[in-house]
This record gives sequence, C-alpha cells and structure tokens, in this order.
Amino acid sequence: MVDAPKSEIIIDTDVGIDDATAILVALRHPGTSVKAFTIVDGNVDMLQAVENAKTLLSVTGNKDIPIWAGADGPLVRGIVKKELWPGHGDDGLGNVSTSGDEELNLPGAKEIKTQPGHAANALVNMVNERPGVYTLVALGPLTNLAIAITLDPTFLTKVKTVFIMGGCLFAKGNSNRAAEFNIHCDPEAAHIVFHSASQLSKPEEAPPKLTLVTWELTVEHGFPWSFFDHLTQSQPVNEFGRFLRSMTGCAMALSRSQHELLAGGPGPSKSAILVEKEQLGEAATTKTRTHHEEYLYGAHSFLMPDLYALVAALDPESVTSYKDWDVQVELNGTHTRGMTHMDWWGATPAMGPNSRVVLAMDNERTKAILEKTFKTSF
Amino acid sequence: MVDAPKSEIIIDTDVGIDDATAILVALRHPGTSVKAFTIVDGNVDMLQAVENAKTLLSVTGNKDIPIWAGADGPLVRGIVKKELWPGHGDDGLGNVSTSGDEELNLPGAKEIKTQPGHAANALVNMVNERPGVYTLVALGPLTNLAIAITLDPTFLTKVKTVFIMGGCLFAKGNSNRAAEFNIHCDPEAAHIVFHSASQLSKPEEAPPKLTLVTWELTVEHGFPWSFFDHLTQSQPVNEFGRFLRSMTGCAMALSRSQHELLAGGPGPSKSAILVEKEQLGEAATTKTRTHHEEYLYGAHSFLMPDLYALVAALDPESVTSYKDWDVQVELNGTHTRGMTHMDWWGATPAMGPNSRVVLAMDNERTKAILEKTFKTSF
Amino acid sequence: MVDAPKSEIIIDTDVGIDDATAILVALRHPGTSVKAFTIVDGNVDMLQAVENAKTLLSVTGNKDIPIWAGADGPLVRGIVKKELWPGHGDDGLGNVSTSGDEELNLPGAKEIKTQPGHAANALVNMVNERPGVYTLVALGPLTNLAIAITLDPTFLTKVKTVFIMGGCLFAKGNSNRAAEFNIHCDPEAAHIVFHSASQLSKPEEAPPKLTLVTWELTVEHGFPWSFFDHLTQSQPVNEFGRFLRSMTGCAMALSRSQHELLAGGPGPSKSAILVEKEQLGEAATTKTRTHHEEYLYGAHSFLMPDLYALVAALDPESVTSYKDWDVQVELNGTHTRGMTHMDWWGATPAMGPNSRVVLAMDNERTKAILEKTFKTSF
Amino acid sequence: MVDAPKSEIIIDTDVGIDDATAILVALRHPGTSVKAFTIVDGNVDMLQAVENAKTLLSVTGNKDIPIWAGADGPLVRGIVKKELWPGHGDDGLGNVSTSGDEELNLPGAKEIKTQPGHAANALVNMVNERPGVYTLVALGPLTNLAIAITLDPTFLTKVKTVFIMGGCLFAKGNSNRAAEFNIHCDPEAAHIVFHSASQLSKPEEAPPKLTLVTWELTVEHGFPWSFFDHLTQSQPVNEFGRFLRSMTGCAMALSRSQHELLAGGPGPSKSAILVEKEQLGEAATTKTRTHHEEYLYGAHSFLMPDLYALVAALDPESVTSYKDWDVQVELNGTHTRGMTHMDWWGATPAMGPNSRVVLAMDNERTKAILEKTFKTSF
Ligand SMILES: [Ca+2]
Ligand SMILES: [Ca+2]
Ligand SMILES: [Ca+2]
Ligand SMILES: [Ca+2]
Repeated sequence: MVDAPKSEIIIDTDVGIDDATAILVALRHPGTSVKAFTIVDGNVDMLQAVENAKTLLSVTGNKDIPIWAGADGPLVRGIVKKELWPGHGDDGLGNVSTSGDEELNLPGAKEIKTQPGHAANALVNMVNERPGVYTLVALGPLTNLAIAITLDPTFLTKVKTVFIMGGCLFAKGNSNRAAEFNIHCDPEAAHIVFHSASQLSKPEEAPPKLTLVTWELTVEHGFPWSFFDHLTQSQPVNEFGRFLRSMTGCAMALSRSQHELLAGGPGPSKSAILVEKEQLGEAATTKTRTHHEEYLYGAHSFLMPDLYALVAALDPESVTSYKDWDVQVELNGTHTRGMTHMDWWGATPAMGPNSRVVLAMDNERTKAILEKTFKTSF
Repeated sequence: MVDAPKSEIIIDTDVGIDDATAILVALRHPGTSVKAFTIVDGNVDMLQAVENAKTLLSVTGNKDIPIWAGADGPLVRGIVKKELWPGHGDDGLGNVSTSGDEELNLPGAKEIKTQPGHAANALVNMVNERPGVYTLVALGPLTNLAIAITLDPTFLTKVKTVFIMGGCLFAKGNSNRAAEFNIHCDPEAAHIVFHSASQLSKPEEAPPKLTLVTWELTVEHGFPWSFFDHLTQSQPVNEFGRFLRSMTGCAMALSRSQHELLAGGPGPSKSAILVEKEQLGEAATTKTRTHHEEYLYGAHSFLMPDLYALVAALDPESVTSYKDWDVQVELNGTHTRGMTHMDWWGATPAMGPNSRVVLAMDNERTKAILEKTFKTSF
Repeated sequence: MVDAPKSEIIIDTDVGIDDATAILVALRHPGTSVKAFTIVDGNVDMLQAVENAKTLLSVTGNKDIPIWAGADGPLVRGIVKKELWPGHGDDGLGNVSTSGDEELNLPGAKEIKTQPGHAANALVNMVNERPGVYTLVALGPLTNLAIAITLDPTFLTKVKTVFIMGGCLFAKGNSNRAAEFNIHCDPEAAHIVFHSASQLSKPEEAPPKLTLVTWELTVEHGFPWSFFDHLTQSQPVNEFGRFLRSMTGCAMALSRSQHELLAGGPGPSKSAILVEKEQLGEAATTKTRTHHEEYLYGAHSFLMPDLYALVAALDPESVTSYKDWDVQVELNGTHTRGMTHMDWWGATPAMGPNSRVVLAMDNERTKAILEKTFKTSF
Repeated sequence: MVDAPKSEIIIDTDVGIDDATAILVALRHPGTSVKAFTIVDGNVDMLQAVENAKTLLSVTGNKDIPIWAGADGPLVRGIVKKELWPGHGDDGLGNVSTSGDEELNLPGAKEIKTQPGHAANALVNMVNERPGVYTLVALGPLTNLAIAITLDPTFLTKVKTVFIMGGCLFAKGNSNRAAEFNIHCDPEAAHIVFHSASQLSKPEEAPPKLTLVTWELTVEHGFPWSFFDHLTQSQPVNEFGRFLRSMTGCAMALSRSQHELLAGGPGPSKSAILVEKEQLGEAATTKTRTHHEEYLYGAHSFLMPDLYALVAALDPESVTSYKDWDVQVELNGTHTRGMTHMDWWGATPAMGPNSRVVLAMDNERTKAILEKTFKTSF
C-alpha cells in the first residue's frame, strides 16, 4: 500500500504564540510537509519573528526547513500604528527564549541561518518552480503575499490554495472596533491579495483561491480551560507539549487568575459563544460589562486564531460549514480601516466570490489533532 | 380606577409601507397618544411622504394630528445617492393612493394642511414647551433630528427617549454592503444624533437616551407568510387591516410568487434566521446563492423594520434582550460609509454607551399587537 | 439730488480682531447700512463672540442693530479640532474688554440683549421677508449659512449676494497644511453652501452668487507696518481708530518686535508677496526657513483677512481681478480636509462656476477706506 | 587634462513622448552615462512602454543599455483609473512606430531583449552593488521605486540622488483637479517614496535625497512654438532631431492648429505663465474660459514635463531657484487623492524636508541643451 503524497505547505508567519502552536501542529502532522517559512512583521518585529522561527526549528529538530526574512512593516507606512497584545510576551513566544528551560534545545537556534533575499522573492521563485504544488498558509499580516503578487501578478494562479487567518465576519474587530489585527496591520496588502483573487478567471466549479478563518470563528470555537490543562499538564505530554506549556504558561496563568477572580470560582467549560449568549440574555440586560469582563467572558480559554487556519489547511474535513463570498477590505474608514466585509446579500454578484469563508469547524477533530501533536510520543 | 397617563409620542417618518404599518399600530394603541408627525426624505421624496402622512390621517380619521414638513434630502448633499427599494411602490405606500379602493377615505387627505415652519423647528419648540414629556420615534433618515440638535444642542435632554429604526448590528447592510438604509441616507445626521447622545451627562443608573432597532433585528424576527395571510385575509379584518391589505398587496404577491417559484411550493413558516442557518449548514456549502435567492431566503416574509421600533417604543416588555453600547457612524469609508458599529469589546469604555441596542423581541407580543390593530373591531 | 439707496448688509461673524476691524469699517461706510449680526463659533467661542459683538455696538453707538446667537460649533462635531491663533487674545478682541481703557464705552455692552431664536432662523426670516435685498458678508465658519440653507433650500436665491472670507487659492493653508481656518472649522457647512450655489439656475450673464476672498489674497495684500502706524498712531485718530489701536496693540507689538529682531532692523514696507518672492529667489535657495521666519516674512504686517471680504462687499471697484470657478471643498482628505479647490483647468465645466474668486484688489482704495474709518472725524 | 567622471544615471520611465525626448537628451549628453532603463506603467501600458524603450535604443544605436520590465499597474489596484492624454498617440510615441519613416532604424528594436527579473529587483541589485553611485531619474509613476524601497528599506540611502517629475506646487492638477498625473497614477507608491525619504537621517548640511520637478514648473517654463520650429524644422537637424520631429509631428500640428484657430493667427511667443497672467488681469475678468481655451493658453507650446526633470539632473546649474520642503501625498481625498502638498508655512518642521522642489529653471540653458541634442551633428 502506498501512502498519499504529502501536502506541501509554505507558512508565512509573524511567529507569535498562536503561530508557534500552529507551526508545531504542522510539523507533527503526518500528511503534511512544511517546505519553507517566510517571515513578516506583526505580533512582534520581523527580526524577532525570524529568531522565533529559528527557535521553533531548533526545538523541534527541523533545522533544514528554509527561513526567509520578509517585510519589516506594512506596505504603506505611517498610517496605522499596530497595537500589540501583551500576552505574546516581549519575544512573542511568552518569553520562552529567556525562560531557562533546560529541556528545550534553545541554543541550537543560533546555528540556523536565514536564506538570502526577500521572502516575497522566495515566494515568487518557489511557486514558479513548482506551480500548483504549494499550499500557502498565511498567519500574519499579508505584506509578503502582497509584494509577491506585485512582483508577479500571476502569483496566485501558481499557488494551490491560500489559507489566511484574518478578517472579521461581523465587524467585531480585535484591533480597531471593526477590524481584525492581521488585516488591520496592513490593509493595503490585504486589498492587493483579495483584489488579485477577484481577478482570477474562475471556472464555474472551482472554489475560490483564498480560504479565510476569521476572528469571530476563533472566538466561537474557544476551548475550555480544562482541555488546556489536559493538553499541557496531564501526562503524557511530549516534547512539543512541554514547549507549548512553557510558551503559554504565563499568559494562561494571568488570564485564568483574572477569570476565576471575576467568576468567583473555576471558569466555565462551555464554548465562548454560549457564555456570551447567556450573558446577552441575562446579565447584559442589566448593565454593560467592561472591556475586561467582556474579554474574559469572550475568551474564557486561550484563543488560538492561527491554529484554526492551520488545521483547516491540514485537515479539510475539520471545516463543517463555509460560504463563498466577495470579500473586500475597507481602506479609508475613520473607524473601519482594515475591516473586511462580506457581500452578505450578494450585492456585487458580478464579481463572483474571491474567498471561501469558514463558518464552523469540528472542534473534536481539532482536539484530536492537538492531542496527537502535544501528547503522543514520537 | 384611574387609567395610567398615555405615552405621548412624536413620529418622525419618511412614510414608506413599514412606516405606515407602524403608524397604524401607534394610532390604535390604547396607551399611546400620537402628538405630531414630522416628515423627512427617505423611502420617498419628502413631499410625497407628506402626502402619505395626510392619507394615513384621513383614512384613520385623525385629521387633527399636526404634520410638519422637514428635510427634503440629507444634510450634506451630493455624496450619497440613495437607492430605493421598489417594493414601496411609486408613492411609497404600495400605490394605494391610486388603487381606486372605495372603502378607504383617500380623498379626505386633500383637506389636511401641514403646519407652517420646518419640522426641526417644530421638534425644538415642542420639547422646549414640555421638556421630558415626548417619546420620539424616528422611522426614517435622522436629518430632522440632527437639525433640531444643531438648532438646540440640548434637544436630547428634553426628549423623554428616542426610538430609532436604523443601523446594523453585524455590518450586514441593506443599502451598501455594510450600512442600513436610514443611516446610509444621511450618515452625518446620524453622527450628529449619536454624538449628541454621547455628550449627555449620564447618571450611573440612567439608560442611554437612544434605543436602536437594527436591520438584523428585523431580519431575525420576520413573520411567516401564514401569519400575514391570517392578519390581512382571514376574517375578521378591520378598517386598518383593509388598508394594510391594500397597501401591501402588490409587494407581497410579488415577493411570494418569486419565493414559491424558487422553493417549489409554499414558503417555510420558520423565522428567517433559522432558514438562513440551515442554508449555511447545507446548501450554502455547495454553492453561492444569488442575490435574488438570498433575498428570498433572508426575507421569506414581508419585513417591517419600522414596526419593530414602534412596538419597542409602545410596549417596553416586548424587548427581551438588549445591550448598551457606544455606537458610532462611519462617515468616510469607501465601502462602509453609513455603517454603524457597536463597541463590541468595550474598546472605548470611557465614553460610555450612547445607545440601548435591541437584541431580541418577543414576537408573540408583537403578533398580539398586530392582531389588535388590524383585526379587532373598533 | 437724491442719494443712491444704501446697500443693506447682514454680517455673519465669529468676531475676532479682523472681524471687528471689518465691522468698524462697515458701520462707518456711508453707502452701507448694517442690518443685523449673526454670530458663529470660530476665532472664539460663540458666546464670547456674542459679547464681542455687543462691545462693538456699544463702543460705536449702534445699540439698535439686532444680534442673533448662532451655531456654537461645527455642524458635524468631534472630527476637526480648531486651532486658535493666540493673537486674537483671550477674548478674541486683543483683550480690549479687560483693557481698562476709559475712553471706550465698554460697560454699555451689558445693556445690549440678543434677539430670541437661532441665527439661522433669523437669516431665513430676513431673506424671506425681503428677498433679493440683503448682501450677506460671512466672516467666520459657514455654519449659520449652512443651517439656513438646510432649513430653506432656496435661501441663496433670496440673498442678493454673499461675500465670504474663506478658502485657499493655491492650497497654502493656514489651519492645516492645505486649508484656511474658516473653511477648515466646518468643512461640511462650507460644502453645503458651495453645493447649494452650484444648484442655482444660472442665466448666462449672471455672476455666481458667492464671492470668495481667500487666505492667499490676504497674504498678497498685506499693508506695511508704516501704514498701520500712520493709521493708529499719527493724529488725527478718531474714536474708531482709538478702539482699533487698543484692540490690535498687543498683537502688533508682539509680531513687530519679533520681526525687527529677526530682520536686524525695522521691517520692510514691501508687500508680503514681494518679500516672499525675493526670499524664494535668494535666501530660500540656501536653506529652509523655519515656520517662525516664514510667518514673519509672509506676514510683515498685521493681516486682516475679514477686512478684504468686507471691503470687496462695500466697494465693488476695489476688486481689480477675479475669476469665476467651480469651487469644491474636500471633506475626506487626511492632510487636505477643508481645502478649497478651484477648477483651474475647467475639468468640470458642465457644473458651471459657483463662486467669483477675488484675485487682486486695489490697496489704495482700501487704504482710503481705512483712513476714512479710523482717522476722519465724525 | 583628464575629463571629470561621467554621471551615471538610471532612468525609470513610462516612455511617453516627453520621456522619449528626455531620454534622447540624456543619451546625447557628454557628461552623462545612462546605465539602465526600468519601465513602469503610466502614459502607456507597461509592455508598450518596454517596446518604446527598445525603439529608442535601436534608433539611437544604444542596444547595450539594459532594460527591465517593471510594474504593470499601481501598487494598490482598483481605486484610481488613470486618464490618458491622447497626444501621446496609441503607442505613446506619437505613433512613430507605425509611421513608416525609413530613415529611422525602427526594425532594430525587435532584436533587443529585456533583462530577466522585475525592475524593482534590478534597482535594488544595482544600488547595492555600487552604493552612492547612481542618480535615479523617475519620469513615470513611482511604483517601481516604491517596490524597491519595500524590498530594501535602505534603498534610498544607496542612491546618490533621485530626480522626480511629479506632483503639483499649487494644487493645480492635470489628472484630477488637484493632482499631477504621475503621482495620481499611484499615490501609495509616491507616499512610500516620500515617507522613506523623510525617515533618512539628515546631516544638517545635506540636501534632501529627492528633487521634485512639478507640473506647474513645466507650465511656467513652456517654450514658444517658434523655438520648436527652429529645433525640428530649420536645418541643421540631426538624427535625434528627425526622430523628435516624427514623434511630435501630429500632436504639435493638432495643438497648434487649434491654438491658431482660437487666437486668430500664429500663437504668442511669450511664456505660458505670462499669457496666463495677462488673461487673469484682462479677459479673465469678463468671462470664464473653457477647458479647451485654458489648455491652449496654458500650453501654447508643446509641454515636456519629463524633459525638465532630466535637465535638472544632468545640469544642476539649470536650476535657478528651489526650496526644501516636507512634501506629503494625500491618499484619501475625494477630490484631492494623489495631490502633493508642500509644507508652505513650516507647520511640521520637526520632520525636516524630504524634497528639494525646483521653483525656477534657466530656459536658456535648457534651450542650449536641446540645440546640442537635436541639431548638432554627431
Ligand atoms: Ca500570527
Ligand atoms: Ca421608514
Ligand atoms: Ca472671522
Ligand atoms: Ca513620463
């Protein structure tokens, strides 16, 4: 019996904690071969993100996967100032690089070199050498992809498919009021990517080239604390799991203590969206919750946006509902710059959809993938 | 036993079909006294809307309620071009005024005169004469309210409360991709109203001065065709019901025939949102529905946005869930001009909420009100 | 011999120093009768501007001219934050109201009452009572005019003509980089006024309804210090001149001392534009002058923008060159919000011009008018 | 005696008629060595511009100068639609490529190949190989330069200096009402270039890295028809001159016949700006000139914007006046998108100037250069 050929993926990433978690999953996934990392500014500065990628490759023993440094800021500078979530730590990896954890092979990162040239040129070269082969998974701002498209306007036609963690479904932003962080960091880059996908000639039966995992999808699919305990605390925990525990320890402890303080006891194990719905029906009618309370209720577990995009790419059956839409990026709004908007009512049907937007995923499949990645011995 | 004093309301309206339905409900409601109509450009031109208000007062025998003509277009002209929904008919009332229906007292409208002066001055005068008394129900673009606030910056402090049909909750617009019609017609006016509400000093326990009924609230609370049949076709139907039947006949027949044609039979009696959710889970995963299909599925009954705002004002207990938010209007977006956005995550808590946003209503209460209005004999 | 009928003017003003100077000129002008003041927020807060108008009427013995309070801020609030020029003093009149000058009849201002109602309603009422009679001179932000047009869209057809101090000719702004203060304070109001003028049916031979005196016109027509000395210091100086001296004393002394300090001696008596041209040809090629130097060279005398608009209204022959243009206001620019732009190349000829833009004035005529106002005995 | 080393320049161009004229001047200039052409979309499509560059190299016997194809449209697409001036002809070179002129070596163009890779990468590679050596002359939209800066944020530090034909001085645009064509074609690219220049550390004495030749500079330095006759018609005319004559023939004939028709005789020999000033002082006060008349008066000779930028680069002494400014590009305006604005009053002095803006040039020097290029025998 012959194994199916492995899916070959390139990961474009700003290497924060959720990127790292997703990357660990990808590196451990049996049906997938990670062929390259292209690095972009986002959760941390680009150069720190490069260091983080080296750390991940050293820790997981994957020193041969090439890394390219890419854009060190948005395409059009001096407009948006990104606001960073402190939970990523100073290094973007929960300060694991200075954690002194002796079990992790951190010093090995120093021996890893980046490839010469800009990530965007690397992307163009790779897809031209082997058109139609690579799945591209974009876990940060879309700057590198936009430059690749600018250098080669046919870029997207030579990618097999692109999975993007980015955008909002209902304008419930996490960066400004209406925009998600990755898109808000570089709205023009996102526009270039979506616009290029809209220009593709689309045979009737072909799916859109882009698949989108939004912020709201993440919030609606949060895991309860108990599962995270199970994953990182209960034996067995493998080497990847030990790294995950180190990386997420401080942030989890912080969020959790705040949550339990507020809730007067251990947090709920319901999904975030259920908790929110209850709140809207009950407590919400009596008073407005503060930002802090809202965050805790809306994020009663550690939210891992990039993880869902990666799982959707590795395991197509994890996506249980989606819709194909013409997605556009607002470039000019005072309050809405960087907001994605879906053509909910088909107001622009002539353009056709440029994106497949994930509406629901099977958390049980994702849990199984996480168990395999972080608990199963090698 | 002494009756509770009646609630005194002023209705600012562009007098389309759903405005008219709401107005009929208000005129029949026992606990409510409609004190004035102020007319604004929107679903139809302002002068036609004035004629429609006269028609309603003639048909219902309320010739003594004063009508003021107001703004004949948005505050800042030459930017937004409004797109009208054809279902309102040429006259905005489903062409009832040229229907030749002999039972309705249509000619009597000619005897009704409007009051002198601009609606905005009338609003200012009324609230200054009896501060704190009037509930204002705004069923069209907010131009008249904005001018009133401009003429008297303390205007809102002298209104008891303002119910507004306007805005989107999830950026699922019905005018551009992200904005609802009433707000999109005059975004600057809406900004002026919301901004003024934000400036009010707010004692801790006081609710926001504005209550918002959004487009999505409407879509999620649509009634099935069968209820509309029951309301307008099955005996008994009173005079108001006969007018409703005349006014909505053509539009309903049109929507319905299209719907049944598409569905291969009489339409579903489920709520619109349920239908949509099923679609997202099933058919939506196989293909993208066209605008036309989407509309039919999303609006399998006659949608009456203004009705919900009016019912919320008349019958506070009909509102079963709400949330207080800082609501802002996007003035500059390329794709999002006129979009309302809620501060979902409390990103601007210092400002405090300016609006109470209705999240759910009790359709059974609304049904009972409709039955009373359109079926009970006088 | 019968005198020509006097021109009847209404002055809409934010009553800063240059407004006050212009108003003194108007009150003394033999061919002109000032019929009303409508007050708007701008150089100072609206309520202070009302006090300043009272001061002017008391000092000049014109207690019978009616004053209406108007808009206390821009139409659309919370967007532009106005930056005030400190030279107007705390009270907008060079602190003359607290100067203790015994010769001036300052206490009399307290006896003057404003008229009831909003300035915009007053404007609408006046032009409807005597259509075609009044010349309107707007010396501040255009908020009151915009509200008047909003209340009565035919407002401009009933005004004889409107003279406006506002806008830039070459995008050499004095408020942001490209916009002039009056327009930048309320760009939407300005848009409403220009848009309304564009909608007027224009017989081929009729001039545009609006006449514009821009910031650059002011800079290019500055008077030398020596003339200001002559006007306010050398005898004879009449009562109006004494007031002018009191009002402008501090600001002049400040500007002048800085200028002489920089220039190493008494300043030039050339026109500002000549000085600038020399600088561009000489010193400017060696280094960039600082803001401070630029200001001094560009304003080597006391600049009186509102004065030129008033003189153009009183004395049509003072205008020696003009051009009729379609003038538009930028509402959305990041750097250019509030900028006026002229259709230099006739790119939109179909619209036709809405404004007569003054390009040059005869300074000798203006000087003569100033001499008459401030030096001739009554 | 040893010759001074030649200035080594790279020309980034969209190869319209004025680009071609400038390129001919550069190729003939004794002190200059043209090292490369990088091609950008603008006056014509990028691929046609590549063909035009080949034509120029074939005609002038410079087949060894490398050509790189670059951006085939603006960075952020789908926003600005460029409007082309018909005078460039279908091919951008006055239809010379289909003119059948036997004297010109047109077929030789077919033998010339472009270099592999994108122009932006070529720019990055060249300046990194020989930092500080190349003068870059940008005669089209700034897309290639922006991509080069994006790929290598230190790009500008390695260029000796950049001369740009682009922008407006007084917002008297030729593309929209306020913006010049090259900047308006790709405002985001221009922003990236100006923003990068603003970020450079600037020693006190160093001039800004960018030198700007604006549209208004061009209009104010137009040559009279008689000089163009002299240049292209009167013997001697060399091979370059014959090409110039072929290339400009149709356009000149067209403009000229219109002008003479209008003027009732052969056109004036005064500079455009003088003509305009007279008009403003005389005719302009009586009526508004149409777009057509304006164009003819403002362009009574063949306007060659790119020529002035090239001459300024080749012959620094031709620049007789300039000013160093902080120049910004408006990205968001409704009417002003793509407008450059100068910090006329030093409102942002902390940033320091990013551009040297040419205010006047010595037309006699330019004339002498043109004579040498087009009339002197080789
Ligand atoms: Ca990420
Ligand atoms: Ca309505
Ligand atoms: Ca003023
Ligand atoms: Ca060019």
